[in-house]
Amino acid sequence: MKVTKLKDIAQLLGISVTTVSKALKDYPDISEETKQNVRVLAEKLNYKPSSLAVNFRNKETKILGLIIPEIVHYFFSNVIDGIINEAEKMGYLVITLQSNESFELEQKQIELLLDQRVDGIIISLSNQTKTFDHLKKVIRQETPMVIIDRITDEINCSKVIIDDEKAAYQAVEHLIKIGCKRIVHINGPLIPKNSMDRLIGYKKALADYNIPYDDSLVYSCEQFHYQDGIDAANQALKDHNDIDGIFAITDLLATGAMTALKNHGKRIPEDVSVIGFSNWRLSELITPSLSTVEQPNFEMGKQAVSLLLNEIKARKEEKMIENFLVKLPTKLIERASTKPTVKANPS
Amino acid sequence: MKVTKLKDIAQLLGISVTTVSKALKDYPDISEETKQNVRVLAEKLNYKPSSLAVNFRNKETKILGLIIPEIVHYFFSNVIDGIINEAEKMGYLVITLQSNESFELEQKQIELLLDQRVDGIIISLSNQTKTFDHLKKVIRQETPMVIIDRITDEINCSKVIIDDEKAAYQAVEHLIKIGCKRIVHINGPLIPKNSMDRLIGYKKALADYNIPYDDSLVYSCEQFHYQDGIDAANQALKDHNDIDGIFAITDLLATGAMTALKNHGKRIPEDVSVIGFSNWRLSELITPSLSTVEQPNFEMGKQAVSLLLNEIKARKEEKMIENFLVKLPTKLIERASTKPTVKANPS
Repeated sequence: MKVTKLKDIAQLLGISVTTVSKALKDYPDISEETKQNVRVLAEKLNYKPSSLAVNFRNKETKILGLIIPEIVHYFFSNVIDGIINEAEKMGYLVITLQSNESFELEQKQIELLLDQRVDGIIISLSNQTKTFDHLKKVIRQETPMVIIDRITDEINCSKVIIDDEKAAYQAVEHLIKIGCKRIVHINGPLIPKNSMDRLIGYKKALADYNIPYDDSLVYSCEQFHYQDGIDAANQALKDHNDIDGIFAITDLLATGAMTALKNHGKRIPEDVSVIGFSNWRLSELITPSLSTVEQPNFEMGKQAVSLLLNEIKARKEEKMIENFLVKLPTKLIERASTKPTVKANPS
Repeated sequence: MKVTKLKDIAQLLGISVTTVSKALKDYPDISEETKQNVRVLAEKLNYKPSSLAVNFRNKETKILGLIIPEIVHYFFSNVIDGIINEAEKMGYLVITLQSNESFELEQKQIELLLDQRVDGIIISLSNQTKTFDHLKKVIRQETPMVIIDRITDEINCSKVIIDDEKAAYQAVEHLIKIGCKRIVHINGPLIPKNSMDRLIGYKKALADYNIPYDDSLVYSCEQFHYQDGIDAANQALKDHNDIDGIFAITDLLATGAMTALKNHGKRIPEDVSVIGFSNWRLSELITPSLSTVEQPNFEMGKQAVSLLLNEIKARKEEKMIENFLVKLPTKLIERASTKPTVKANPS
């Protein structure tokens, strides 16, 4: 792959290299039109500035910026743990910000981190983020960035995700293997990508085991609260009298679903098996304990820092910047809320 | 109260003001003996440097440092939430570090934050912290500091705590009011102060209701894990056949205790009432749901930032620095694990 240089953009637009450089840095003496043209072309050609420009622009601060949707959250607090620990080991401190699932706050926080001249940014997108100008600005300003968990295809940079599709597949396959045929799927809003990928995994597992997909078995919650799980399962029990399995997109929704099942006199797992997603701390403490899919959350944080520091280093050494997509594997955890897997007798 | 000045220290020791100033700033040309004398006296007189020196020393970074024992922890993640939100509202960013309950790491992290020239530090002490030279250095270097939740009397600065004694009193009083007489107390290591204060609250409630204190009913766990709660309650059931209430120092220990009670065929709350401490998310999800004491964790973070920023401002304006001890009130939450409070009939 040919590396795009400032010169290439300048030639294609018929302007000087200096003008291109100034346009990308948002200098006031360049017209908005020119800036726009330069940006569009830079984006299209996947232009990555050389480290010389970066070194010229600012000195290292040894500080990384982190924007996370929620801190009081078992998954994300583990991710933060992984990030902070790895960063500190490598000599970096981390400024943590919480977007509270607000697109507006996320935009503002990107500005704060750029103003602070952090050496790099790690971000997990808010539920509300559907446009990406603020992230394009990070790329344009030549600040290394890694997006984790809640990602988008619209931005070219390294990303770390859980293999959501495969994880959902594992969970549903487990339900099928213990004999479930009418499996309810309780999920959340299909933006960002995670919910969608888990739905795809659900469908794929059904297809591979010749169980017809029935979209009346899929319930989408607007939030991920305990009560949403109760409501979804209540509705499912009202709509169908033959359900024998529930795959919920989070452990908290699964816990709510279990409460609804109990209130309807359904035995877990004898009548309905339930499996969640995330392996929260509560999952082994509730009765019956909840089968789930464990996500490598600490590892995700660690990998994100490692990718970010590699990019910071590559830029310093004027090496080409490569973008990676790291998909971390998950682990099925069987507990009392699903029937035990039938094991073949040794012969 | 008279404000101590550099001059006072110089006069008392019979050395020059410059020597005192240099000693406090750890200049290499001052002897260790002189430094030691100056430090001891400065400490004794509660010397607080004027803001002029501070302004001279460094410019504002608009960054605060935060050291917390554990991030993946319901209480602390809520505290962090409060701190980050309040700081951001006031125009400050927060570098978060996790001591992992390690004294060694905590010392190193204080150095990192001082090197980074943060405008102020908020810290909650690790379980292992029994000496305080690293914190004395922060005071000496004139960096504003607030200690939260896990505090010490050995350092003069503002502090924010939960009123642990009163909270424990509330919990035990609740058990007494519903008829419990043989109340087990499951606690943790008595350092830092929190466990000790809760034990005092336990004793005080018993005394006020004329129930003799029996130290064979107090079980101290080395850790705060689920299994520790199980072990402590198992031991209590082995030692005593008449217990009718358990007050555990955390919800997770209480949850473990409930599991042990169930395994022994004890009904909750008919045979034994159980109350926890913290109101974790899991507490309303387990069966029976757990009565507990709610701590104002988010509020604690908010108050800490507010105190810290007030001190930063006071120093800038060369005003006198006052130290505050803020005790935040808690709230009793009655759920199914304790018998309902008997209400007098309206007459």
